[in-house]
This record gives sequence, C-alpha cells and structure tokens, in this order.
Amino acid sequence: MKALHIIKIGGKVIDSDTDLKRFLGQLASLSSPFILIHGGGQMATRLAEQMGIPQQLVEGRRITDESTLKVATMVYAGLINKQLVASLQAQGVDAIGLSGADMNCVSATLRQKGGIDYGFAGDLNPGSVNGQKFQALLEQGFIPVVCAITHDGKGQLLNTNADTLASSIASAMSPYYSVQLNYFFEKQGVLRDAGDERSIIPVLGKEEYLHLKNTGSIHSGMIPKLDNAFRAMQDGVSRVIIADAQALPHIIQNTTHHGTELSC
Amino acid sequence: MKALHIIKIGGKVIDSDTDLKRFLGQLASLSSPFILIHGGGQMATRLAEQMGIPQQLVEGRRITDESTLKVATMVYAGLINKQLVASLQAQGVDAIGLSGADMNCVSATLRQKGGIDYGFAGDLNPGSVNGQKFQALLEQGFIPVVCAITHDGKGQLLNTNADTLASSIASAMSPYYSVQLNYFFEKQGVLRDAGDERSIIPVLGKEEYLHLKNTGSIHSGMIPKLDNAFRAMQDGVSRVIIADAQALPHIIQNTTHHGTELSC
Repeated sequence: MKALHIIKIGGKVIDSDTDLKRFLGQLASLSSPFILIHGGGQMATRLAEQMGIPQQLVEGRRITDESTLKVATMVYAGLINKQLVASLQAQGVDAIGLSGADMNCVSATLRQKGGIDYGFAGDLNPGSVNGQKFQALLEQGFIPVVCAITHDGKGQLLNTNADTLASSIASAMSPYYSVQLNYFFEKQGVLRDAGDERSIIPVLGKEEYLHLKNTGSIHSGMIPKLDNAFRAMQDGVSRVIIADAQALPHIIQNTTHHGTELSC
Repeated sequence: MKALHIIKIGGKVIDSDTDLKRFLGQLASLSSPFILIHGGGQMATRLAEQMGIPQQLVEGRRITDESTLKVATMVYAGLINKQLVASLQAQGVDAIGLSGADMNCVSATLRQKGGIDYGFAGDLNPGSVNGQKFQALLEQGFIPVVCAITHDGKGQLLNTNADTLASSIASAMSPYYSVQLNYFFEKQGVLRDAGDERSIIPVLGKEEYLHLKNTGSIHSGMIPKLDNAFRAMQDGVSRVIIADAQALPHIIQNTTHHGTELSC
C-alpha cells in the first residue's frame, strides 16, 4: 500500500510565522501524499477577546456557544485554513482547504449534554469521516488541509477537537493507505514528568500509558490525544508519532528517532 | 452543451436567515449544476466595527489593509462560506466551499497602486480562473460555493470583487457549458431611474447601457457589474440576468420575465 502521512499541527506552530513557513516548506518536500489537520485555539481566543466574547474552557475543551462557534468558524475555516492553503500553493503543493461540511467529508453529532453543556461541540463516531472523498482528492493529486469545524448534516456547523479529527481521519484512511499519524505540538514528545522536558518517552506501549494515566503523570489534554491515537492503531493505522514541529524532517525521512512513538 | 448556472448572491440575501434559507431551498431543487458565488461585505463591515478596525470604501470598493484582509478572509471564506455549504448539504446538495487559493482555482494580481492604494485587493485577468478545476468538480457531482478571497500564487491572499469573480468564472466555464450568469441583489433589476423601483429595464443592450452610463442614470456599483457582465457575453456566456433573489424560481424555470436581461 502507498504511504500517507496524517499531520496534525496546532498551537505554537501556527502562531509563529517563521516556524510555520519553515514547517510548510519541509512538508512541501515530502514525497508521499499527506493530509494536514490544524487547530488554532489560541488565535480564536484572541479574536474572541478582541470582540468581547468571554471564553470558557473545561478540561481543555472550549464551551462553544453561538458567538464562539462563529469565532471558531471564522478563525479555523477562514483565516488559518486559507493562509495554510495559500502558503502551500506558493510552495507548489496543490492544497485544498476543507471543513467537515465541504463535500460532507466529516459529519459529527452534537455532544450529549451531561453535567457540562459544551454547546455546539461535535463528536465524531465511526463512519463520521468519509474516507472515499479524501482518497478521491488524493488520487487526483490534491492535498487536503482540514480544519476542525464539522457539521451535523442538518445545516448546523459544529466545533470539533482537532486531535480527535486527526486520529479519525487516520483511521478512515487506513483501508486505502499505509497511514502514519503525526502529532506536532510544542513539546518534544510525551513526557514521563510534565515538568522535565528531558523525560521524553521514546516508545510508549498501551500498558505503560494506562499506568502513567492512572498515576497522573499523563494528564489533561494529553489523555484524549493518546486515547484516540491508540484507538487509531487498533483501527489499522501503521504508526503514531508525537513530537515537536522541529522534528518534522527527521520523522519524514525516518532517520534518527525523535519524539514519542506509540506501540500496540 | 449542458446548462450551467453561475449564481451570484450578496448583501441582503445573505444577511436575512429566512430569505437565505428559502433561496438555498429553491437552489437545491435546480436540475442543472450550478456554481454559487457570494460576497458578504455588510457582515465584514460589522465585524470590523466590533473589532475596532476602521473601514474605508472608495467608489464601493473596500480599502483592504492587513487587518481588513483578515476580517474579509474570516467572514467570506470562514463564516459565510461554511454556513452556505452546511445549509446546502442539509438540502442534499454536495457543496464544496472554495476560496481562489483552494486547488489554485482562482489566482489574482495585486491591484496596481494608482491614485488610490487599495491595499490587498486582487484583480482578475484572462486566465485567472482555472475552468478545468471547476469542471472536474462539477463532473464529479460537486457544487462549488466560491467566496471572493483569491491569492497571488506566492502565498498572499487577496480581496476580490465578487461581481467580477462571478463574471470571470462564467467566462471561464463557457467553453464547457451553456452558461447563464445570474446576479441576485436587493433591487428588482437594472433601473432606468435609481429612485424609481418600477423603472426596471427588461432588456438592456450594450448601446443603451453606454448611453445610460454616460448620462449618469446608471452609476456607482452597477457599472463594474454591468461592464463585466457585457464582457462575459462577449466571452461566450449565453445569458446574463440581473434580478432580486425573490425571482429565482421564475428565472430558473424560465417562466415569466423577471429582472433585467442583457442583450449583445
């Protein structure tokens, strides 16, 4: 099977023009096709502040009221998505920006209201990602750039977790490609001790992960990222790597070891 | 040749939820494929005000400084585009939202700085619209929803006039389809007397247009719309109709006469 990289970027990579330019330049030199998935929470928070819309986050997840959904749609599907697409086009990559509503490529369901009302938050289910639509684009030479705005199929846009979106897309593409899922973020990998940047775990197995989760060494935003990533491996994704954006060339060329690689 | 409708909506249609829902419902029942092109200037102006970014318009054209370009990208490519796509998807139309950067489907050049510096404004040239990319999407059953944000191919997004974009797309599609270009706006057609809503010109020829332009009866925003529309007819577009959004069902079904039809 052909190789496909699923590449999730977020936070600091997007925020720094210099880092982003370098990162996209390196991506452009990739010989295999890829799907780029992005967040952009910090930029959305700043815009909301500028517009006087108070933001509320519970356990790293944004409460998406109507105004916040508008802000998220503007920042993710508009500003960040189109800047990424234009930058990739300038590097000769025939990128196409997508929300889940476009081509109905990712549909979601409104998150059930439990103790917390997350508002217009969308959860992904098996079957949410239309792998065939992405495959058709890739086969025609297009590179999808996907933001974490989805829809419910009834006309409602929904704010979705970008890490979860990345692992769901990776799973959905695994019948067609040998998929490597890469999470790029501000840390050098999964840390055994969140306070010690040198405590990177080079290879993280499921059992060790569950142990570190139970003892509280791995916590908050890292938990959904890893839960979903392990599930993606069960679904047929070949490799999952979590690293900082600087490590991209090494990971792509598969030279020296960087970041954390998951093992089943 | 197969029929293709190019449909430009702007201003008031987008601003009213009820009008927009009805309009999109009627569009969804259209038997031939179409490309929807939208503006959204009023919403962009409101967002800019909310963010404290002063807006300047010269002869109906927005001066696009860096902050204004961000606002335009957020509102056109983000909020409006994705809401239109999600609404069409809910009606069973397999819509895909596009800026000019996506698939490099529309490239533009930075407007020359003459007496007025329009900032990041993009002008379209022959060859700006990649008709083959749109054709490929249409042949696969997708309905493009295009916002007036384009790019220069070097990584810079540009703010483009949506009326001009519509006529350029119509021209570029005319080798492949029998193209009808429809401008829907707040008035019932081109008026002989701007102050009299009943003075609609049912059929407007080039000579009469030039006369009305010279005498000042037709002025401001209507001039670039009509200049471009007449050029589109020269380029092979079959029909151009300018009408209010309420007239959509009649125009689509080609029953009674509504609005203004151009004649060469």
